[in-house]
Amino acid sequence: MACTVEIISVGNELLIGKIANTNAQWIARRIASLSGNVRRIVDIGDSLQEISAAVREALARKPTILLITGGLGPTFDDMTLEGLAEALNVPLKLEPEAERMVRARYERYEAETGRKIELTPERLKMAKLPEGGHPVKNPAGTAPGVVLERESTTIVALPGVPREMQAIFEEFVVPMVKKAVGDLHFYAKSLEATGVIESELAPLIEKTMREHPRVYIKSHPKAPEPRPLIELHISTTSESMETAVDDVEEAARMLIQLVLEHEGNIQELVEQE
Amino acid sequence: MACTVEIISVGNELLIGKIANTNAQWIARRIASLSGNVRRIVDIGDSLQEISAAVREALARKPTILLITGGLGPTFDDMTLEGLAEALNVPLKLEPEAERMVRARYERYEAETGRKIELTPERLKMAKLPEGGHPVKNPAGTAPGVVLERESTTIVALPGVPREMQAIFEEFVVPMVKKAVGDLHFYAKSLEATGVIESELAPLIEKTMREHPRVYIKSHPKAPEPRPLIELHISTTSESMETAVDDVEEAARMLIQLVLEHEGNIQELVEQE
Repeated sequence: MACTVEIISVGNELLIGKIANTNAQWIARRIASLSGNVRRIVDIGDSLQEISAAVREALARKPTILLITGGLGPTFDDMTLEGLAEALNVPLKLEPEAERMVRARYERYEAETGRKIELTPERLKMAKLPEGGHPVKNPAGTAPGVVLERESTTIVALPGVPREMQAIFEEFVVPMVKKAVGDLHFYAKSLEATGVIESELAPLIEKTMREHPRVYIKSHPKAPEPRPLIELHISTTSESMETAVDDVEEAARMLIQLVLEHEGNIQELVEQE
Repeated sequence: MACTVEIISVGNELLIGKIANTNAQWIARRIASLSGNVRRIVDIGDSLQEISAAVREALARKPTILLITGGLGPTFDDMTLEGLAEALNVPLKLEPEAERMVRARYERYEAETGRKIELTPERLKMAKLPEGGHPVKNPAGTAPGVVLERESTTIVALPGVPREMQAIFEEFVVPMVKKAVGDLHFYAKSLEATGVIESELAPLIEKTMREHPRVYIKSHPKAPEPRPLIELHISTTSESMETAVDDVEEAARMLIQLVLEHEGNIQELVEQE
């Protein structure tokens, strides 16, 4: 089975380059390791119109899962749930279970700090979900995640704070991806070639992929001519991990052979996390 | 004047989380510093259909500039120009000036290394531009950039290799942004608040923004309750740099005052690059 995923990341900070979208990268890497298939990542600003437009466009492409990160907090520019409601054409409603979660969190905070916290409208906003949505417990923060079904797509809204996003993802999204993927396995390895330029590698890669049609090979130039260094990424998804490993290793051996015949140097690259 | 920008980044490596989209972050930061306005960043895979769909969707929103990064090289999965041609409904054509650039690059490589390089179809692909497109010299690599006008949008395709992308951006895109922006100036500063939680800050931020409507303030929770640390980003765009600085500094002073009254701690944050 296939599990296609789209990611929408909400936050002006992404559009002014204050941060790179490392949330999307983290999610994409986890999804790939689970043999899911991220199709698109979209970064937009804290704008109701942008959020609802991006959600509508993503839903039209019918991904298995649509993940939205950011914009769930209590500040006025946290508009993800409102944007989601607008896209789905449903009202926002105070959801009792979400309210309980938010209230419990502040009660704990009060107990820990002795500081009185009222459930102001800003705070209650975190418990107002698009109709039909369910809260997902946030083990690392206040704003609950939100899950919602729409036709064949499961929409999950996650907080933008990395540790909160990751905690909900691991507990809640991972099982969902595993179930959708069924019994698929992803395997990848990287090689590093020197002494050949990308345009010399291109036909060697093509030849290797023709003989190993289940394997995908991509080249990334890392240092320019005249002393080129090119990273090669070889990957596949298969119904057994053994087949995935065999396919990738066989393709790697063939490509290494071809590069050596071409008077280049090539070696395995140990992946850094 | 306003200069709205959309960025499309092409590359499967983004969708498996092998890398974060630091190219888009770099561009977004440069555009913000030039007082341009990045509206959307879209990451897609090396797929003809995805590229042409993303280009069509972006053009429909009529940005001033549409930047596309990646997919300009000689390998079979470099499909940006083909996708662009499909989106614009024009054929790909060998462009004489682009061919001259590619040829000159390989001749230099031959002279430097003594290695014979033929202009194979893979290499010539880098000189086949969508009809109406013009090549932009790549001072740091082989594949030229491409510029193309479509209605009110200027489309610029840039290589994915960061140093090549950055070199073309600085030489070619920066003057274009400056011209479109006219005489606008961007200024921003960051503060760091402790001892208050995000939902307590929300009304203080709102009050500050109401009194300083030209200023935009965004909060980023960095550490969770019960010892919250929140980064605050204050920014504006103005017709004079002096006004921009004054607006941001006044808003910062007001917000600092409000936080202190609220028994929180707040201080300026020195930005790290």
